[in-house]
Amino acid sequence: MVFALSAEGTAPLYQQIREGIRNDIAARALLPGSKLPSSRQLAADLHVSRITVANAYAELEADGLIESRAGSGTFVSPVWNIDARIDRRTPFTSPSWQQRMVSIPDPVRDRMLREASRPAEETGVIAFACAHGDVRLFPMGELQKTMTEVLREDGAVALGYDSPHGYPPLRQFLATYLLQHGMQVSADDVIITAGAQQGIDLIARALLQSGDAVAVESPTYAGVFECMESRAIRTVGIGLDAGGMDVAELQRVLERDHPKLIYTVPTFHNPTGAVMTAARRRELVTLAHRFDVPILEDDYMREVRFGSPIPPPIASFDQHGDVIYVGSFSKSLIPSLRLGYVVARGSLRDQLISLKGATDRCCSTLLQRVLWRLLERGTLFTYWKRASRIYRRRQLVMLGALRTHFPLGSQWHAAEGGFGVWVGVPPRVSVTALFDQAISAGVSIAVGAAFFPEPDDQPFMRLGFAAVEEQHIERGIAKLGRLIQVQLAQHKGAGTSAPEPG
Amino acid sequence: MVFALSAEGTAPLYQQIREGIRNDIAARALLPGSKLPSSRQLAADLHVSRITVANAYAELEADGLIESRAGSGTFVSPVWNIDARIDRRTPFTSPSWQQRMVSIPDPVRDRMLREASRPAEETGVIAFACAHGDVRLFPMGELQKTMTEVLREDGAVALGYDSPHGYPPLRQFLATYLLQHGMQVSADDVIITAGAQQGIDLIARALLQSGDAVAVESPTYAGVFECMESRAIRTVGIGLDAGGMDVAELQRVLERDHPKLIYTVPTFHNPTGAVMTAARRRELVTLAHRFDVPILEDDYMREVRFGSPIPPPIASFDQHGDVIYVGSFSKSLIPSLRLGYVVARGSLRDQLISLKGATDRCCSTLLQRVLWRLLERGTLFTYWKRASRIYRRRQLVMLGALRTHFPLGSQWHAAEGGFGVWVGVPPRVSVTALFDQAISAGVSIAVGAAFFPEPDDQPFMRLGFAAVEEQHIERGIAKLGRLIQVQLAQHKGAGTSAPEPG
Repeated sequence: MVFALSAEGTAPLYQQIREGIRNDIAARALLPGSKLPSSRQLAADLHVSRITVANAYAELEADGLIESRAGSGTFVSPVWNIDARIDRRTPFTSPSWQQRMVSIPDPVRDRMLREASRPAEETGVIAFACAHGDVRLFPMGELQKTMTEVLREDGAVALGYDSPHGYPPLRQFLATYLLQHGMQVSADDVIITAGAQQGIDLIARALLQSGDAVAVESPTYAGVFECMESRAIRTVGIGLDAGGMDVAELQRVLERDHPKLIYTVPTFHNPTGAVMTAARRRELVTLAHRFDVPILEDDYMREVRFGSPIPPPIASFDQHGDVIYVGSFSKSLIPSLRLGYVVARGSLRDQLISLKGATDRCCSTLLQRVLWRLLERGTLFTYWKRASRIYRRRQLVMLGALRTHFPLGSQWHAAEGGFGVWVGVPPRVSVTALFDQAISAGVSIAVGAAFFPEPDDQPFMRLGFAAVEEQHIERGIAKLGRLIQVQLAQHKGAGTSAPEPG
Repeated sequence: MVFALSAEGTAPLYQQIREGIRNDIAARALLPGSKLPSSRQLAADLHVSRITVANAYAELEADGLIESRAGSGTFVSPVWNIDARIDRRTPFTSPSWQQRMVSIPDPVRDRMLREASRPAEETGVIAFACAHGDVRLFPMGELQKTMTEVLREDGAVALGYDSPHGYPPLRQFLATYLLQHGMQVSADDVIITAGAQQGIDLIARALLQSGDAVAVESPTYAGVFECMESRAIRTVGIGLDAGGMDVAELQRVLERDHPKLIYTVPTFHNPTGAVMTAARRRELVTLAHRFDVPILEDDYMREVRFGSPIPPPIASFDQHGDVIYVGSFSKSLIPSLRLGYVVARGSLRDQLISLKGATDRCCSTLLQRVLWRLLERGTLFTYWKRASRIYRRRQLVMLGALRTHFPLGSQWHAAEGGFGVWVGVPPRVSVTALFDQAISAGVSIAVGAAFFPEPDDQPFMRLGFAAVEEQHIERGIAKLGRLIQVQLAQHKGAGTSAPEPG
């Protein structure tokens, strides 16, 4: 063996050994099938401890490069060696089966969603595209303590598989919590999912087939289009105002389009912030039952609000079991927990549990145990209260900045909770163009088009305030305002240079 | 307010206050709309700190039971109160839309998979049904240290959303790791998924439609049937021996059934333990390319093995990009991480990333960061080496016990890695009946039927040894042996009491 160890290198010794042997094999200084020195001998040769060599050998063996044979020693793997297979490589061409994708996502929506999902730290931009809470506010010490507690007290079972149904104490806690919101729920009815998104996706998989229609508010949460479009399920948009979905329009859609599901975000509607009135919630469940169509209530966040009372969930008005309820801990708490839940009953519940297993077996029992302890202890309720006050201040800063920097003809609505402001701009503004211009200027926005069933350019954008600090909000909105003014000026300029005939 | 605090109760004071006020509201001692004392006043009345009362109020407000109005105080929520809505409840009937499930899982398979997914701690049985590693062997201190490190060093970004593609350093590490196995991979080609199961499910979603066929080994990993059956995709079984899939039979199936995908577990095949020979791996990629059908290589575990060399992945023989590769850290490491990965290229890769977003947004960035550090540091390779030695001993104990306790006519194959033994019993034994009898006797087994395309009773079972301690293995196999002897004796008895005519 020809390599030498360096005490100065940053790589640990065992990695240097591993690297050295790997290079020797690649350079054919060590031939396939040849015997390596014993770890004792090599340790003596290299003046390192035997465990260092053993570690290097263990990794090389895991790499498939060497093999230890009981009683006879350690050998370079006889048949395959890495360089021979790698060297003769040409870049892959695209086989024809690659043309047979079942569906291709909408490019506008896809790009916007990818932008919104990029961590602000990665992009370095003022991330108005994100509409979720600010994880920097979360008491890190509390989380660290709880994690250590779970690992110490629950032990190895916290590392194993959970059932697809979910961790029983967490399901029990949620059942009690929802009971307090007036819902009739047992722990058996609660299924833990990887965020609300997986809940929606599993429900679609259980209930809908390609060609079916789903009634949704228009605009609505963009993730629901991703889920439905990739299954070739049609979405039928229904208008809404500050009091939520237009129930009369829903009735016409139920009669005309026979949707198989009504999807709604009644509380702090995403993206508009609307809160459905109690009266409409009642009407909705009555209509759903009359037409025998289930409601999927996406209650992604009730906990962050700015004062005014909000009506209880639609599910609490349900007398017949027509409402499937989805909740989440991503946007309001810690996205990285990847935990949400579905409340469902009867054969739908059983089917969802099976599909959860078919999809990804189960959620992390470790993270479920951490969440349960944080909930049980009340930490989270205190956190939500505190965070709400901070988000409220950020919202007010954004509203003030919009008044200062956005042009006449812009509109917005100050929601009583949630994480973003839905802003309408004059129709001559291209928000899709603004998206690119804003990225170049260091600001990200959520393009309004992404929230509509037909993602054409729409004069709307959603500006998330909750995860952006106050000083950046003012600066970011000012930048957007200037970019919009430039667009309007160009538009005017274009209008002047090419006057209407006549 | 009429409640009293108890210093003896186990509930924290703030919870007692919360409970007391909730009961008062339910009992109408506090009426909707009525004003609550200020937190200062109530704290003085109850001789507790003001923060305790504030915590109780925060939770009650999160419950929707009370509302604080800036400047005027705290009030019982005016419109809705919990008891009125809960009391008039009758149990839900099942609405007719509940009859419209898209598909119902196979009951035999479903039950077996649920049994296998139940944590051994919950069932208290000797869990031969589980075919994964023993998490109790994992160095808990190492995990705890790494988790703390990530939270401290990465900070809040570890709590946020990741991209659907996955954590870049982890993807980079995996690309390098797979390169060492002879695969041609860049970090861009790696997509992080919630275990191998989600990888398989996303690939099915991207490439297959209802009515399509998939070629699989028969028997094969049961999770693939769950995924395919729920999508109304047919599975066509192909025989295998100790050297893997019968390639000649595959060719006949390709000609006759036109499958859209070949699914294979070439290394430590689940459930049989077979390892596909290098020659067949080469033939497989040649065939796949000729018929323009992609291969899904499920390489769920290469790291736990008992000495003999194993061929490199099928993907390392691929010259054209026809192999989609799936790996996992669940069975060999920590199921609770819920992390696996897919290697894919071209439009399939892009589509998988979009579908990952549509399915559940992303994997936990926290857990990805923990896994990356454990891999990078080499901890895991040392662990796999150590665990392999322990599993090997457990396997030998099981093989010995099978020889002692199982009847003549039983067969098994000692695999060179993996977590279970595939056991054939005399055809008169009903393994489905044995499953129930074994559960009653405190032993769980994986019913062989679950691994076949048509889950009829089959005289096979898979017995996982890796997660069961040696002393329990001997005892569990002895119990199974006795139950089988009883079945055989009854069979004989039945034969005598009802002799064949003539």
